[in-house]
Amino acid sequence: MGGLTVLSALRTSLPNEDFVYLGDTARLPYGTKSPATVRRYATQAARQLVERGVKALVVACNTASAFALDHLQEQFAPLPVFGVVEPGAQAAVAAADGSGVLVLATESTILGGAYQRALTAGAPALPVYGRACPLWVTLAEQGPQEAALTRAVLAHALRGFTQGGPHTLLLGCTHFPVFRTALHALLTAEADRPFTVVDSAATTAAAVSSAMQAAGLLASGTRAGAIRYLATDGVARFSQVGAHFLGAPIGAVELVDL
Amino acid sequence: MGGLTVLSALRTSLPNEDFVYLGDTARLPYGTKSPATVRRYATQAARQLVERGVKALVVACNTASAFALDHLQEQFAPLPVFGVVEPGAQAAVAAADGSGVLVLATESTILGGAYQRALTAGAPALPVYGRACPLWVTLAEQGPQEAALTRAVLAHALRGFTQGGPHTLLLGCTHFPVFRTALHALLTAEADRPFTVVDSAATTAAAVSSAMQAAGLLASGTRAGAIRYLATDGVARFSQVGAHFLGAPIGAVELVDL
Repeated sequence: MGGLTVLSALRTSLPNEDFVYLGDTARLPYGTKSPATVRRYATQAARQLVERGVKALVVACNTASAFALDHLQEQFAPLPVFGVVEPGAQAAVAAADGSGVLVLATESTILGGAYQRALTAGAPALPVYGRACPLWVTLAEQGPQEAALTRAVLAHALRGFTQGGPHTLLLGCTHFPVFRTALHALLTAEADRPFTVVDSAATTAAAVSSAMQAAGLLASGTRAGAIRYLATDGVARFSQVGAHFLGAPIGAVELVDL
Repeated sequence: MGGLTVLSALRTSLPNEDFVYLGDTARLPYGTKSPATVRRYATQAARQLVERGVKALVVACNTASAFALDHLQEQFAPLPVFGVVEPGAQAAVAAADGSGVLVLATESTILGGAYQRALTAGAPALPVYGRACPLWVTLAEQGPQEAALTRAVLAHALRGFTQGGPHTLLLGCTHFPVFRTALHALLTAEADRPFTVVDSAATTAAAVSSAMQAAGLLASGTRAGAIRYLATDGVARFSQVGAHFLGAPIGAVELVDL
């Protein structure tokens, strides 16, 4: 589901490209699964897309990027395969001051340490903090909720960080951009300092766009691109819940079996 | 994970029996999946257990009971196959007064209407209300949390029901017994009337125990039963998170592939 926030950003950056989007709804969430399982599922999903003749692959999930990106790049070379961890980490390094970066992500992403490694590679002295936010994923998938509930769930994950600590927050899960507004409201009201919120969806779209341009892979012409949606389960639910993440209605969804 | 609350109740009812417990951790949660997918996954899980020579099968998940019980009973006949929906519904019918029953369960269980049907079959005039509580599942799997967060999440699902409405609450998800204490505290503080909370784990254990006895299937002797744990992913996480649901430590866990 969260990958739709990345698709939304990609459409804005690359309006003339066609997209095929696959949501592995039968097996979500990836965020609590082991690295080996995530790799296996990601490979099956990628194969389905590669067989449909895509010219590049975006792994629009932080957990899958963290655990499977190297593997997918190797397996499907020379196809360009992009992840969401590197672009998010680079943008956070650029935005951060000496107070460091707080990474908000799924349990698996935090435990796996991919963001911690990517951030430290870019800025060895940067203090990096991580916090797993499993409730945020479930809450995001419920669609818009009462402000009080959203606030309680967001505040719980940020306990100890609104007063003191890093000034830069990195949304290291593709579900989390839907909380941007609520998060800004909370931080404005409760934090003792200004915050910068970096989101890996927007930064990934920018990175993919410039890499595709550099490689001469962009579509020529000005025709508006089309989107095809595939899901592994519950196509009606995918359309309905997905619209919240995409920020736009989702049309026909094809059911596929991996 | 939630099935461990049923296992805990079964061990108390049947202390001399051996148990083989399978947690399909690679593909949880079932509660947002379609009926066809739940049926397929439940059949694969059941086959794994049947091949290990069990003398009875307990489907210790409300979503799987709601969507797959008939199918499993047919496929594995004459093996006794028990679900959690019927016993919970019968206990709620026995406990309820004219104000009716509020079923708290996963999205799929509520949408599928299995509890609504089972309750109405037992008491045609009983008012039945259903509410999906997806955040409760995620919260339960985090282990014990700050009281304020638990309270906010529980209260959100019960909004509109603490003042007016049914006096009987049916916990229609095997994860939810871990919230018994917090739920009682909330209802005692906020509700305008006494509540009865019925939990399908305890009622299922009682039903299985008496059916096994009637069928002459109980182990003879007084040897304490053993438990074997199988999981489809993340055995370390299964042990750690599972102990919260079982209410006791979990020993060795075998990784199985369905």
